[in-house]
Amino acid sequence: MKKTDHIGVAVKSIENALPFYTEMLALTLIKQETVESQGVKVAFLDAGNIKIELLEPVNDQSPIARFIEKKGEGIHHVAFGVENIDKRMDELTSKGLSFTAEKSKPGAGGAQVAFLHPKQAHGVLYELCDHSYNGGDDHE
Amino acid sequence: MKKTDHIGVAVKSIENALPFYTEMLALTLIKQETVESQGVKVAFLDAGNIKIELLEPVNDQSPIARFIEKKGEGIHHVAFGVENIDKRMDELTSKGLSFTAEKSKPGAGGAQVAFLHPKQAHGVLYELCDHSYNGGDDHE
Repeated sequence: MKKTDHIGVAVKSIENALPFYTEMLALTLIKQETVESQGVKVAFLDAGNIKIELLEPVNDQSPIARFIEKKGEGIHHVAFGVENIDKRMDELTSKGLSFTAEKSKPGAGGAQVAFLHPKQAHGVLYELCDHSYNGGDDHE
Repeated sequence: MKKTDHIGVAVKSIENALPFYTEMLALTLIKQETVESQGVKVAFLDAGNIKIELLEPVNDQSPIARFIEKKGEGIHHVAFGVENIDKRMDELTSKGLSFTAEKSKPGAGGAQVAFLHPKQAHGVLYELCDHSYNGGDDHE
């Protein structure tokens, strides 16, 4: 791991949640976007050394919609920044860990992402997040 | 906020959870201690720019025991590093936020801590964490 990249927070409505972050905590909104493949709208806030990613479901099939239905609004995942994500996945797989999908895929902010199965992580959903992905040619 | 200080993770057993962090993710264990006032054993891991704090309940009355009973193991809180915590609490209170206790109190790692009510934060328990507390004389 290079460092912790961001914390993902599931919210019902980014519009309703933003004032807590921008007005109360005085964090800066970096950007907002929609990630259709994940069924979410996201907003990134600058929390100093890491980012806070607010995640709002855009449909009922979104994993975030199911998370909120089951657990309520709250922290959804923690993302570690990595380089060469496919190689890191191979390394962790060889140590006995498994991922929620076999291959990394595009996520928010142009990053390539993968999620470790939370059961192995004692209930925490950890993401690997590669901001310098070169299209899967990073195997040595 | 100066920056994000740590993420608190509730686990049933630090001993059982540690190998995932130290062997699989190859994070370094910084220290372990027991915070009697909170009814928890804690272990801090170096996650690059922030720390991961594993929290294990030492009795059934611990807030962490109740959290695990209700929600299972998982992410419990996110801590922002601040200076002059009592003054920051006054500022946030004047903005309309409230804390789970009226005054800050000693937490793990020699820090002075306070927790914002999670309802205002859309389900997230945010902690303020002051590593340079001078005993409450930091009001201007």
